[in-house]
Amino acid sequence: MSEPLTGIGVSPGLIAGPVARMAGPPALTGSSVLNVSEALSAVAFQLRSRAVGEAAEILEAQIMMVEDPQLLEEAERLTADGLDAARALDRAFSAHEKAMLELGGYFAERAADLEDLRNRAVAAALGQPMPGLPEPGHPYVLVADDLSPADTATLDSSVLAIVTQRGGPTSHTAILARARGIPAVVACPTAEVLADGELVAVDGSLGSVRQGVTEGEVTEIRDAFLATRARLLASRGPGRTADGHAVPLMSNIGSAADPVGEEGVGLFRTEFLFLDRRTAPSLEEQEAAYAAVFSRGGKVVVRTLDAGTDKPLPFLGLAEEENPALGIRGLRVDRVLPQVLDTQLDAIVRAAAAHPSAEVWVMAPMVTTWQEAAAFASRARERGVTRAGVMIEVPAAALMARELLEHVDFLSIGTNDLSQYTFAADRQHARLADLLDPWQPALLRLVGACARAGLEAGKPVGVCGEAAGDPRLAPVLVGLGVTSLSMSATSVPAVRESLAGVTLDQCRAAADGVLSDQLLVPQPADLLGPDAAGR
Amino acid sequence: MSEPLTGIGVSPGLIAGPVARMAGPPALTGSSVLNVSEALSAVAFQLRSRAVGEAAEILEAQIMMVEDPQLLEEAERLTADGLDAARALDRAFSAHEKAMLELGGYFAERAADLEDLRNRAVAAALGQPMPGLPEPGHPYVLVADDLSPADTATLDSSVLAIVTQRGGPTSHTAILARARGIPAVVACPTAEVLADGELVAVDGSLGSVRQGVTEGEVTEIRDAFLATRARLLASRGPGRTADGHAVPLMSNIGSAADPVGEEGVGLFRTEFLFLDRRTAPSLEEQEAAYAAVFSRGGKVVVRTLDAGTDKPLPFLGLAEEENPALGIRGLRVDRVLPQVLDTQLDAIVRAAAAHPSAEVWVMAPMVTTWQEAAAFASRARERGVTRAGVMIEVPAAALMARELLEHVDFLSIGTNDLSQYTFAADRQHARLADLLDPWQPALLRLVGACARAGLEAGKPVGVCGEAAGDPRLAPVLVGLGVTSLSMSATSVPAVRESLAGVTLDQCRAAADGVLSDQLLVPQPADLLGPDAAGR
Repeated sequence: MSEPLTGIGVSPGLIAGPVARMAGPPALTGSSVLNVSEALSAVAFQLRSRAVGEAAEILEAQIMMVEDPQLLEEAERLTADGLDAARALDRAFSAHEKAMLELGGYFAERAADLEDLRNRAVAAALGQPMPGLPEPGHPYVLVADDLSPADTATLDSSVLAIVTQRGGPTSHTAILARARGIPAVVACPTAEVLADGELVAVDGSLGSVRQGVTEGEVTEIRDAFLATRARLLASRGPGRTADGHAVPLMSNIGSAADPVGEEGVGLFRTEFLFLDRRTAPSLEEQEAAYAAVFSRGGKVVVRTLDAGTDKPLPFLGLAEEENPALGIRGLRVDRVLPQVLDTQLDAIVRAAAAHPSAEVWVMAPMVTTWQEAAAFASRARERGVTRAGVMIEVPAAALMARELLEHVDFLSIGTNDLSQYTFAADRQHARLADLLDPWQPALLRLVGACARAGLEAGKPVGVCGEAAGDPRLAPVLVGLGVTSLSMSATSVPAVRESLAGVTLDQCRAAADGVLSDQLLVPQPADLLGPDAAGR
Repeated sequence: MSEPLTGIGVSPGLIAGPVARMAGPPALTGSSVLNVSEALSAVAFQLRSRAVGEAAEILEAQIMMVEDPQLLEEAERLTADGLDAARALDRAFSAHEKAMLELGGYFAERAADLEDLRNRAVAAALGQPMPGLPEPGHPYVLVADDLSPADTATLDSSVLAIVTQRGGPTSHTAILARARGIPAVVACPTAEVLADGELVAVDGSLGSVRQGVTEGEVTEIRDAFLATRARLLASRGPGRTADGHAVPLMSNIGSAADPVGEEGVGLFRTEFLFLDRRTAPSLEEQEAAYAAVFSRGGKVVVRTLDAGTDKPLPFLGLAEEENPALGIRGLRVDRVLPQVLDTQLDAIVRAAAAHPSAEVWVMAPMVTTWQEAAAFASRARERGVTRAGVMIEVPAAALMARELLEHVDFLSIGTNDLSQYTFAADRQHARLADLLDPWQPALLRLVGACARAGLEAGKPVGVCGEAAGDPRLAPVLVGLGVTSLSMSATSVPAVRESLAGVTLDQCRAAADGVLSDQLLVPQPADLLGPDAAGR
């Protein structure tokens, strides 16, 4: 048997089935059977017919681009000059795409979407099959160079697994695959050898794709996968190791509409209230939105507004930055516009007071120094917050975890941003995906330093980044001393099962193995005790 | 006596004298006395007359902008429409500036230069004094909102000290002030209260500006400053502590034209060979350039090409990135274009072989994992490099220093980039300058981790970032275990004197104090003795 193809496993599970490759872009041959306007309408219609549920928001943006009157006008002008409709669409989209690429930043990102729309419009004009997800008529392993947001949003239940040649652990594909429980491997360039119909076994935990699988193996693997999924879906109860060490498994949510597991909300993102607004939401509006979440009771950890030039909010009026991820974002917005945080804290406190069955904790994102942590905590407490904490996303904050904990009640580690900075590699950068692997020991050393500081201070240190929802990594995080994990609600059952299968000592041994060497950061190690690294 | 104004000290030394503020932008009143073309020529002439020595390169770029034919054409078109020359220039520059701001990135940075040029051109047209450096006719403390590259490049010896309201420790102003030995305080917003003629004492070590200084104090402080400077300039010999612990003090250079101290070159930047080129320099051309440096003999640590989308080189053909500092740069370019490194290593080895009196070490920038370090070292050794090391600029690399040292011969810490990533704060970001203070304990903990790993492995760990040239910080770095310091040659005497005044044990005590949470605001008096601030 040959070596399996390897990439980065981003959504766990072992499943097998026949490959179906994403249809490529249409060939510009033959004459068009639709005119420009008809072809664009066909694309918009196709997108609109799929724009239901969580896909709607993503597709709506695509539809707006297809229905851009400038695009239609430009393509029609070209046909008036005698060009065939498909070629006119091709040129008009290309010109649009080039202009967006030149603008850089967000526009450049949206340019990739335009490429996908161009292919659809050209195919529609030529009467060729619309590119996009294959429809083989049976369950399949989707293999693609990369997936567009439109593709990802419209995956249906016939997709057994996803394998992409590009993409990274924090890409859109990875996040959606995890949310849907579809095993996925990204950054697997050798997947280009996979042919339609070929039987493969995809291991979304190990990040491998094995070829030469027999029909019998496919059935066996698929049965095991379905049995596991059924068992997981039926599972209940709090998170704990085999020997009873409790590790609350909480949920990351973005609004009151998102599902929540049994042990509460470990990360309530509040950006949804602020999106697409020219002015900040009022105290009352915020209070109502927070109350909608608090009214369900239980623990809720609210993260204050995490915006910046990388997640731009018009009402903040922030200047463009050369490196938005290294600029004014998260709590740093407070350096520019302190009123935003004051209003938000007031709204949270008022909503919490109205719903005493909820246990409301509040934390700030992108905290860097203990001085920032102390200032945030005292401001939050002055306004009535009972438990004030901070996110650990900046390496400096992790290195000073002990000092931060002298001023705040808890820490919550955001592994995605923490690895972005620790490895100096943009989360969205496809060519640096290998550096962003959450198993990188440098990242886990920082997590361990924070957890150790928490154990010493007797204060909770959770993880709420993507790493928390990885059932293989969860025992390692617990072994490092992390006291709770927060993830998308759909990830909870697999993590619960994973933890239930190991003892705390086994978790510690696993952490030891991954760290492999002593923690070298001198002061934290010396300050926290001789075995800081080992645990 | 009132509290001194505080900012960030970026170039050490205590000096006193009368304030002279930078002239503000001209008022758009009255009618022009020069036409558009005459005004632009006057600005170009003024700049050209100052473009000598190290200022030439910076000013040449400014002159090109002033002489841009499009600018002249646009302004003349506006005067043809009846507009006064000064107003036409104002509008033409503004339109240019807006277009550059919209392009973002480098263009946006150059837009600030245009603002300065606009002010000069408008002043010239109106017959007002050209804005820029004041010329009070006696030595003065220059106070400005911020300094343009043109201003900084043309500072003359009548500038006693620099105080800016904006800017950060890694800004152009800071780097130039240090290179010239001019005490400087940046990021001091309260400096706006300082009035022309007012006597102040500027402490570029503490980052403070004291008002209400008497004439007698001015003389006393200035005499002490000049005596110190004379003593430093006369000093010679290798770097060592009071008790004889050797700490080689080497020089950072960018080409064979830069001055080098007695103990060799600790950082030879090789970018100068690659700038403004459509193709990579040939093996022979590189060999000749390296030989020019090696021919002087002594130790030379060569850094391989450090380019990326943040320091773009046309011949690399790299795609635009959302966060250039978190993208393909330094050794990561090798993922895309491996031939560049191979040719450079061959050229270095050939030049070194021709100059056996030079002891040539080679290191790669932006190394992140031990795997990258190991791959670089084995490639360098295969091609004939005798000592292969890596820069520590990425937090992950510092956290894995011990593992890196299993594969390389030495480490060299680049504190500027290391703090940029550790604090997730762009080096050039004026509003986040406080985070980039090299005294931040989180940064020093990482430096300590590297130094400790070096001591364990018996391999050298140097510092070649700006921090190495700070005479107050140098003893702390030595106390952390750093084995050599590399800085601009002009910084060597002050660092030599600082080290000569303390024992290794005192250095270690200072390091302990700075690392621990006991001393979070550094007090130089505690570190170096009571008169440290005055040195």
